[in-house]
Amino acid sequence: MSVSRRGLFGLAGAGVAVAGLGAAAGVLATGEPGGQPAGPVSVVPFRGQHQAGIVTPAQDRMHFVAFDVTTKDRAELVALLRAWTAAAERMTAGQEATEGGAVGGHPEAPPADTGEALDLAASALTLTIGFGPTLFDDRFGLAARRPEALIDLPRFPRDDLDPRRGGGDICVQACANDPQVAVHAIRNLARIGFGKVAVRWSQLGFGRTSSTSTSQATPRNLFGFKDGTNNLKAEDPAALAEHVWVTDGPEWMLGGTYLVARRIRMHIEIWDRTSLAEQEDIVGRAKGSGAPLGQRDEFDPVDPNVRGAGGVALVAEDSHVRLAAENLGGAKILRRGYNFTDGSDGFGHLDAGLFFVCFNRDSRTQFVPMQRALSSRDRMMEYLEHTGSGHFACPPGVAEGSFWGERLFG
Amino acid sequence: MSVSRRGLFGLAGAGVAVAGLGAAAGVLATGEPGGQPAGPVSVVPFRGQHQAGIVTPAQDRMHFVAFDVTTKDRAELVALLRAWTAAAERMTAGQEATEGGAVGGHPEAPPADTGEALDLAASALTLTIGFGPTLFDDRFGLAARRPEALIDLPRFPRDDLDPRRGGGDICVQACANDPQVAVHAIRNLARIGFGKVAVRWSQLGFGRTSSTSTSQATPRNLFGFKDGTNNLKAEDPAALAEHVWVTDGPEWMLGGTYLVARRIRMHIEIWDRTSLAEQEDIVGRAKGSGAPLGQRDEFDPVDPNVRGAGGVALVAEDSHVRLAAENLGGAKILRRGYNFTDGSDGFGHLDAGLFFVCFNRDSRTQFVPMQRALSSRDRMMEYLEHTGSGHFACPPGVAEGSFWGERLFG
Repeated sequence: MSVSRRGLFGLAGAGVAVAGLGAAAGVLATGEPGGQPAGPVSVVPFRGQHQAGIVTPAQDRMHFVAFDVTTKDRAELVALLRAWTAAAERMTAGQEATEGGAVGGHPEAPPADTGEALDLAASALTLTIGFGPTLFDDRFGLAARRPEALIDLPRFPRDDLDPRRGGGDICVQACANDPQVAVHAIRNLARIGFGKVAVRWSQLGFGRTSSTSTSQATPRNLFGFKDGTNNLKAEDPAALAEHVWVTDGPEWMLGGTYLVARRIRMHIEIWDRTSLAEQEDIVGRAKGSGAPLGQRDEFDPVDPNVRGAGGVALVAEDSHVRLAAENLGGAKILRRGYNFTDGSDGFGHLDAGLFFVCFNRDSRTQFVPMQRALSSRDRMMEYLEHTGSGHFACPPGVAEGSFWGERLFG
Repeated sequence: MSVSRRGLFGLAGAGVAVAGLGAAAGVLATGEPGGQPAGPVSVVPFRGQHQAGIVTPAQDRMHFVAFDVTTKDRAELVALLRAWTAAAERMTAGQEATEGGAVGGHPEAPPADTGEALDLAASALTLTIGFGPTLFDDRFGLAARRPEALIDLPRFPRDDLDPRRGGGDICVQACANDPQVAVHAIRNLARIGFGKVAVRWSQLGFGRTSSTSTSQATPRNLFGFKDGTNNLKAEDPAALAEHVWVTDGPEWMLGGTYLVARRIRMHIEIWDRTSLAEQEDIVGRAKGSGAPLGQRDEFDPVDPNVRGAGGVALVAEDSHVRLAAENLGGAKILRRGYNFTDGSDGFGHLDAGLFFVCFNRDSRTQFVPMQRALSSRDRMMEYLEHTGSGHFACPPGVAEGSFWGERLFG
């Protein structure tokens, strides 16, 4: 089944306006985010208690962007957030950014949609917004509303951050099963924001490395290993309430969450020259099955007490799986990362790795201690280079009649 | 239907060798390249009269790489081409680069497959090799075998080429319906070539902009227009024989073709601020339907005589569609390009555009005159910047028992 949701352009090319497709899109809805795995024609509801794109079953592709706000006018920024919300809701329903946007407007005006997604299905597009620490400086009167949890992330051991790949006043994460749909959405938000925001950095992720639903198989990262087996899942609302959704801090963030993005270059050429045994020791899992060392099945629990020849622990203390689990003090994070490749590095290697994205309720007690332990003790760090970083406060879901960030600016 | 072709890793994780899947892969074959549109589980035959990945119905995603050969030993290069051929044939069949590559080898040896495609289907992967002009210098004794048609491309007006995105001794174009399968293939070829070749540049293409089969709808480029409506198609072997397949020059190239790659940055933010009428004038087609101006259907022929108000030609002489068609002197090219986005440019804009790939029988009489006309007269050039360029001789298909480039080195 192939649903083209944006219109029938034999007519449109002759100048006939295109009918809105809101009704048709509704038919395709798959229920609340986190409900069903999202096929290519699925529509993920835009409005709800929480933003979509967090516990929504991870789509295959991602385009992430961070904007600098260039206007100094608070009212103009608020107007942009309203316009963005309207466009985002339409695009996630598989429609153009505005009614008849690409070809239905006045021929002497620039089109209000760029058109490259005209023939494509909704593809489970989600758009998730977050606000960075810099938005809370003195430009917009928001300093008093900055959540304490929205810290400037500390410098971690061996960080090698490129300032051109980090920070930003506002981020938008676009996820979809068709990359052109995700890129189209980001590009149209940038177009709508012309003169008010500028693209600071962006990242295309070609393949998901996380499952956020029990209905999804665990995918592999560019080290060839299954990643995030013990990830939080949409089907476990109690765990999400405990680890992901904000219940304290400023009122405007209740029901929201904190997004951490890290662009992690993987030195895959060096990794590829290490032995299978060494790779498995570093990860703490079997490469094929994904099972913890000493276990049979991917989802068997990690057992630090299993010992092999000579009484050596099979899952080493400094293995990635143990360090990640044991340094959260029982806390968990929701991972939602993507593999990337951005050409070559100029030194004969592919510039490839993991665009790590996680959501947590308080990065100070979840992401930060975990990353501190990993960055100082994880043997995998030898093969990694953190080149980009961002921290954003994602407000709760958008209620009917509301817009992105309304409670922050209200 | 979800076919995992690389093995069942519950067993493999416990150390059991994985059986080859050659037989199973055969079941999925869809016939000769150019036969059927390729679904996610399809296998495109590796061997045949011509290389796959040229008239094969254009897959959705691409990873293109250009290598510098770093060894000076001709025998070592030939051995690499043999090893690459064996791995390429296996990977296009949906297998690991070598038998039991990822987890079936000796644990103290580096795996012979990197593993990130273990659970993925063949995804219609094709791998297409080409040899660049620099391979024919004095290193390998090939100077006398350089085809006259394999020219150093001239500098075109307004070229702004980045040397880090052009040239190369050898290129490999990987196309697949799953980007992770394409990236995995290139990465494993680079791994196998360690110490003999180095990645010079690479490009990920997220969405196809060409149809190479009448069974495919015409996709849209990042200007929002249908692109390549009049492309050559697999179903027209007479036209392919006339415009694509080499019938003269050195014997080793008979049945081959010449590949031109151009990384074309599109200034989408400027384009997005031009009116619909202006955009359509520049292209010469309606944005919605893709029909030539003055016509109704996408596939209606361009008629330069149709005039509108005041007797002005509807399809302007300097429109893209007329310049491209009329400066080939009746010749055609087979386009096989992809949309790309590589983050941002550091000045508030997305770094996005078209990775143009075409195949032609002689670039001197096909691509070069066309590009010369476009680069000097096409009004679209205002919105374009050619930042990368490559020209490669793609030998004919690989016969049973033969390897990539055997006739060149034989």
